[in-house]
Amino acid sequence: MRGEIIAIGNELTSGRIANTTSGFAAHHLFEAGFDIYAMHTIGDTPTLIGEALKRALSRVDFVLVTGGLGPTDDDLTTEAVSEALNRPTMPNLTLLYQIRTHLQTVSGPVVSPLEKLAWLPQGAETLNPNSKMSGFQLIHDDKPIFFLPGIPHQMQTLLIDQVLPRLTTWYKDRQLAVYQRVYKIFGKSEMEVNQETKSLQLNKAVEIGYYPVFPNVHLSMTVRGSDTEAMEKIFTATCTLVEEKMGLAIYGKDDESMESVVGVLLQQNGKQLAVAESCTGGLISHLLTSVAGSSAYYLGGVTSYANSMKTDLLGVSERLLQEYGAVSREAAKAMAAGMREKSGADIALSITGIAGPDGGSEDKPVGTVFVGMADAKETRVHRFLLPGTRYEIQRMTAQTALDLLRRYLLT
Amino acid sequence: MRGEIIAIGNELTSGRIANTTSGFAAHHLFEAGFDIYAMHTIGDTPTLIGEALKRALSRVDFVLVTGGLGPTDDDLTTEAVSEALNRPTMPNLTLLYQIRTHLQTVSGPVVSPLEKLAWLPQGAETLNPNSKMSGFQLIHDDKPIFFLPGIPHQMQTLLIDQVLPRLTTWYKDRQLAVYQRVYKIFGKSEMEVNQETKSLQLNKAVEIGYYPVFPNVHLSMTVRGSDTEAMEKIFTATCTLVEEKMGLAIYGKDDESMESVVGVLLQQNGKQLAVAESCTGGLISHLLTSVAGSSAYYLGGVTSYANSMKTDLLGVSERLLQEYGAVSREAAKAMAAGMREKSGADIALSITGIAGPDGGSEDKPVGTVFVGMADAKETRVHRFLLPGTRYEIQRMTAQTALDLLRRYLLT
Repeated sequence: MRGEIIAIGNELTSGRIANTTSGFAAHHLFEAGFDIYAMHTIGDTPTLIGEALKRALSRVDFVLVTGGLGPTDDDLTTEAVSEALNRPTMPNLTLLYQIRTHLQTVSGPVVSPLEKLAWLPQGAETLNPNSKMSGFQLIHDDKPIFFLPGIPHQMQTLLIDQVLPRLTTWYKDRQLAVYQRVYKIFGKSEMEVNQETKSLQLNKAVEIGYYPVFPNVHLSMTVRGSDTEAMEKIFTATCTLVEEKMGLAIYGKDDESMESVVGVLLQQNGKQLAVAESCTGGLISHLLTSVAGSSAYYLGGVTSYANSMKTDLLGVSERLLQEYGAVSREAAKAMAAGMREKSGADIALSITGIAGPDGGSEDKPVGTVFVGMADAKETRVHRFLLPGTRYEIQRMTAQTALDLLRRYLLT
Repeated sequence: MRGEIIAIGNELTSGRIANTTSGFAAHHLFEAGFDIYAMHTIGDTPTLIGEALKRALSRVDFVLVTGGLGPTDDDLTTEAVSEALNRPTMPNLTLLYQIRTHLQTVSGPVVSPLEKLAWLPQGAETLNPNSKMSGFQLIHDDKPIFFLPGIPHQMQTLLIDQVLPRLTTWYKDRQLAVYQRVYKIFGKSEMEVNQETKSLQLNKAVEIGYYPVFPNVHLSMTVRGSDTEAMEKIFTATCTLVEEKMGLAIYGKDDESMESVVGVLLQQNGKQLAVAESCTGGLISHLLTSVAGSSAYYLGGVTSYANSMKTDLLGVSERLLQEYGAVSREAAKAMAAGMREKSGADIALSITGIAGPDGGSEDKPVGTVFVGMADAKETRVHRFLLPGTRYEIQRMTAQTALDLLRRYLLT
């Protein structure tokens, strides 16, 4: 079973807003065993919307349309669909009642532009009758079409809660099973991963894909078919081979991130962490605390951007900073040791470097980064020279530091 | 002049990787006066690639194709184009020489998979003769087609340095001028912005768009035409009306971000900032330091995730934390005052709250956030209750705190 995704909005074709919803939908549909034949992004132009929808209906089994369903004047999807599929819009009375009740409670005008949301193409069924921005479903030529709002969190909730169950029920018994795993790799290039995997001469039933996803490489393995027992066997054997070949370079699988993996390892080891950041400016702390439950192993940190913060909050001596500079092996060492002492953490990381675009010198060019790690026994410092923009240097530094910690916790 | 963008890769249609390159290209092409008719995302399937390319050539003036040009086995764009447009691949000798020279210096194998990069469709011209991953250009039916690698930073550099100048030269004298501005608004909903703008009865020559871009709303205004003098007049008058209506809710324009605007205001006021973060976990610090040159006004901060960090590094008393809790008006106040004192900054922000998903209580549900701000005169604390996921609460808190600082610096 395969489908197409049509995202609508001038904000997308003019590149002002990134289209994140199509990728989200593709990801979850793919995992549920549906293939995406193509994804299209077009402007709020009724004729184009109609054309794209009719072409999609002529070649795939379902269509997902996002965007252009809101109350503002530039939201034209419903009108376009009504015209293209020859289904006049009619008021959905439940929705209309809800909207009017809502407007009374907030004492809005008697006829509000919000009422536009209640007018749907003939035959439309709302996806969630309890919400006025729930999107709707049409069955046309025996194929389901789903219309969802373009706002990412609304679209995502409706896709998971409404579209996937409805689609799966509609096309039950016609699905192939899918086994898929994505290995996340740090410290090897896409081509190295490709060459090393190729040398394994894996079973041809396994589709392999290589994707540089800065700062990582993703290696995906997919097997599809109806003989689930045979598929699972091939899949498991292939995974084992790849894991052995890549070793520690694989830091995680599927939805895992470097920061979630590090979090699990810290908890397993019963260790608490603190981080002193200079050139990464809080990025490592932000990554760590984006994981729910991180307070169990992350105490916090210091962003010592100015030298005074390094001396006052981390106890780095002024003389050391004068003698070696804030970007130095010695400063990184003192920052890590100071952070560990001040916080009482078992392990402390420190970062000092030059993220650019200015501030480099011949001796320490932009991209020079020192990463320190202190535990009860010692404080080690690693020096790196990283290429790229300010953002790339900051992101690569954060990933490198977390990967050093991961490898430390594994051994 | 209008074009289409075709992005190629199974990693995109399976939703494993977000397609960021098409939006980037659309944005810059739009700014240069080119319209994007449609953007497509398809898998590494030669027949689909050929079909999409031929259909695009039949209806628009130029085509941009990204992805599938790499050295790995799943990169099939060049072969597909060769087949679809009936242009056999031939080795580009300059490229081949470069690749072999490169391989010698790294002592690689004699015949490397990298050599695949030198085989291009007949008539192809490389975009940057000094790089082996430069992409290429074909003129077909008198229309330019550009092929770029899918890796974002490579694609972005080539688009700006090679594609835009070539396209502009090719279609010189056929372009309409474009005046565009995007206002970035925080603290109003998309519908409020829509209603307030509508009440101004703006000149119909101005296209208006409304886009919720969490946590902000973007309001875009566009005028196109050939009579530049009249257009500019209409555009300027409209901008003035909108700016007056929206007032302080507009925090920035075009490429400005909340953090860059706050940075400029801090510099103009000659003030230095420090930030103590609990539930935002370093996010505010990360946003501030993503701006190049932020060391001029940002001293740094403390991520006081654990209570011990609040007492040891910020001087918040243990009794206060016991009496009122770490998430309280009193804790926020003590954190801001302590951060200001320890850092010597002119202004200190503090954040304490519950980002969830766990940790809420009846009294202080998930989403409860206190933001403190201390200057030489006083320390004020604001309480908020924010909806959403962990990420949304963290991001909304960061934006709210930075917006409070912006409004403080403006008055």
